[in-house]
Amino acid sequence: MSNAQTRRLWRDICVFDGLCTLPEPMAVITEGDRVASLVAMRDFDEASAQGCQEMGRGGVMTPGLVDCHTHLVFGGSRADEFEARLEGVSYEEIARRGGGILSTVTATREASEEALFAAARPRLEALIADGVTTVEIKSGYGLTVEDELKMLRVARRLGEVLPVRVVTTLLGAHALPPEFKDDSDGYIDLVCQEMIPAAAAEGLADAVDVFCETIAFSVAQCERVFEAAEAHGLPIKAHAEQLSNLGGTAVAARHGALSADHIEYLDEAGIAAMREAGSVAVILPGAFHTLRETQQPPIAALREAGVPMAVATDANPGSSPLFMPTLMLNLACTLFRLTPQEALAGMTAHGAAALGFKGEGRVQEGATTDLCVWDVDTPAALAYAVQPGRLRQRLFQGELTHVV
Amino acid sequence: MSNAQTRRLWRDICVFDGLCTLPEPMAVITEGDRVASLVAMRDFDEASAQGCQEMGRGGVMTPGLVDCHTHLVFGGSRADEFEARLEGVSYEEIARRGGGILSTVTATREASEEALFAAARPRLEALIADGVTTVEIKSGYGLTVEDELKMLRVARRLGEVLPVRVVTTLLGAHALPPEFKDDSDGYIDLVCQEMIPAAAAEGLADAVDVFCETIAFSVAQCERVFEAAEAHGLPIKAHAEQLSNLGGTAVAARHGALSADHIEYLDEAGIAAMREAGSVAVILPGAFHTLRETQQPPIAALREAGVPMAVATDANPGSSPLFMPTLMLNLACTLFRLTPQEALAGMTAHGAAALGFKGEGRVQEGATTDLCVWDVDTPAALAYAVQPGRLRQRLFQGELTHVV
Ligand SMILES: [Zn+2]
Ligand SMILES: [Zn+2]
Repeated sequence: MSNAQTRRLWRDICVFDGLCTLPEPMAVITEGDRVASLVAMRDFDEASAQGCQEMGRGGVMTPGLVDCHTHLVFGGSRADEFEARLEGVSYEEIARRGGGILSTVTATREASEEALFAAARPRLEALIADGVTTVEIKSGYGLTVEDELKMLRVARRLGEVLPVRVVTTLLGAHALPPEFKDDSDGYIDLVCQEMIPAAAAEGLADAVDVFCETIAFSVAQCERVFEAAEAHGLPIKAHAEQLSNLGGTAVAARHGALSADHIEYLDEAGIAAMREAGSVAVILPGAFHTLRETQQPPIAALREAGVPMAVATDANPGSSPLFMPTLMLNLACTLFRLTPQEALAGMTAHGAAALGFKGEGRVQEGATTDLCVWDVDTPAALAYAVQPGRLRQRLFQGELTHVV
Repeated sequence: MSNAQTRRLWRDICVFDGLCTLPEPMAVITEGDRVASLVAMRDFDEASAQGCQEMGRGGVMTPGLVDCHTHLVFGGSRADEFEARLEGVSYEEIARRGGGILSTVTATREASEEALFAAARPRLEALIADGVTTVEIKSGYGLTVEDELKMLRVARRLGEVLPVRVVTTLLGAHALPPEFKDDSDGYIDLVCQEMIPAAAAEGLADAVDVFCETIAFSVAQCERVFEAAEAHGLPIKAHAEQLSNLGGTAVAARHGALSADHIEYLDEAGIAAMREAGSVAVILPGAFHTLRETQQPPIAALREAGVPMAVATDANPGSSPLFMPTLMLNLACTLFRLTPQEALAGMTAHGAAALGFKGEGRVQEGATTDLCVWDVDTPAALAYAVQPGRLRQRLFQGELTHVV
């Protein structure tokens, strides 16, 4: 019997199903790459265990984690800059030395596809070892047509080589490259007229993203990018309302954005627009932590409005060099007062929705066998304690890819 | 040739020696449980490689990490309480349900030595997998003579079974047990007259600690504990100035404390007393993070005064359920503005000093072969990025105990 048909059984396991914790200990049977059945233990019929591989008893099962916002592919490191800043070197001086995002752009442009792949691989392996089965990876450090496509190719290749589903996002409108110093509209022309068409033609991008902020691109510029994406049939999303309230979220929502991400400064109008559009709010506590921000995203208002909240690592070399999804569960609860259930839904069902996979990121009959089994007593423990090494089993599309 | 004499060679490695990063790439040779030589690569004589096991090239070597303040041994979990609080249950209601530290005391008293060992083991394994070679473990959830000794026995046994040096601390004066509700002086009598003598007689405690705080014990009560410890030849330390400035640190320093820990509210007089006594300031960013404190420890003043700063996990079920020393490097830098070099020294040389091992936690000729080799380019990267799985090699007393 090939692995494709393997029947696996977990007994007496606490299941977080992607939206909530099931009230009773469960028996779960998977058959190849599908979840075949979930039954409360007290209703479990021993006959259905026949032919099943026994996978153990106890612990907590969750969907495989979905990290719906990362910048995993990049050249260089910003550890030296982190150190310089803490040793008292001013931001101005660091910029003068070529630091900041442009140092990552320079290093990414200089790196070959092979070098970028080799650098990103251990970062992605760290996410996988912490339970991730679906990860989004953005471009955005190339800022030329060729270098953006290079980043996306590396992202695609990571998904071919490692046991994880990679979703790619073209983020050409991430920062203004030095070549367009006084011509941001000219750069947006390039993004719209060359980058998006090229990425679409090669099938390299699953979505298009922008950074809508005073230090990046205006709402009008972002809207041009949305329109170009639409013209090529690509869904859109936005980094918006992170450092100020420009109203980018509402415009993105009007264009049917899958998600608006960061949104610390989001106002009521923006929340209403998201609810209307069915956009997901992607909460990124890693950048909030690293940048020592004080403006919290409007969690209570989002909750009240019924806007689904995802949680992601935002893994990137500048504002969130944090390659650990379960740490984000803790930060989302501790810093933003999400409940553990909300944080977990944010990295499973709502994370999937932020990538356009509505109804995924679940443990339910017929779902894909993307699962994690954790050595904890309760799902809340995954957010409460930060402790590497608690992932007992991880299945990706029915294949067991991690056993402690 | 037995492992005791194995000669091992690392080439072209960046060494953080416990106090600072050496300026040039080094060749390091160990011989059994001692570091035999450190030489700059450009001065390395190939003849000295003869008979050496080649351990690789590149990466960063640090001393094995020293986690000088933990409460790793405890019964139960407080994940449910964490969840209840985030779901809006008030502190009063949680207390009424028996939550807070007393829930840990109840669960710890109820647990057998075997159960406590089994629960603590994966926590300690997580620290080991993140580079720890020396760990301090406190009692303090038993609060009876028998239960405190039970905790210390579990701590000792962890050190016998796992490849790590365990240092034990009796923290009988951690909280007032319910049996002594209106008689805290009576409980301090028990600590001084029975607990300390019993722990000393059985050789179960390497030091004695107190919690000096309005919600715990007064300065005068703590001083009685210090005197009892002295009478039994045990060094002392204190949880002090965490939530208010009672002056416990100065009194502890006058008694020659190895360390004063937390010290968010420490004042100039306290700093002067620590400098005078040679006490180490133990910085615990995990509790600051978890409790969402805003009062920062006086880092700049400690630095100015030349008081050595250690950094530790404070791993415990209530205020710091964070079992990841490298996360503490990040938190110490991000939240408290330590430099990466200071944070690393805090988990190596100064962590060792906080346990009374002055001159340890170093990579230098003649030092014990307690070493970590990390897959990073620069020591600062260990504080900059949070990424499990970067520990390439770990040696404990000359034995290779971790290979990726
Ligand atoms: Zn981002
Ligand atoms: Zn403590």
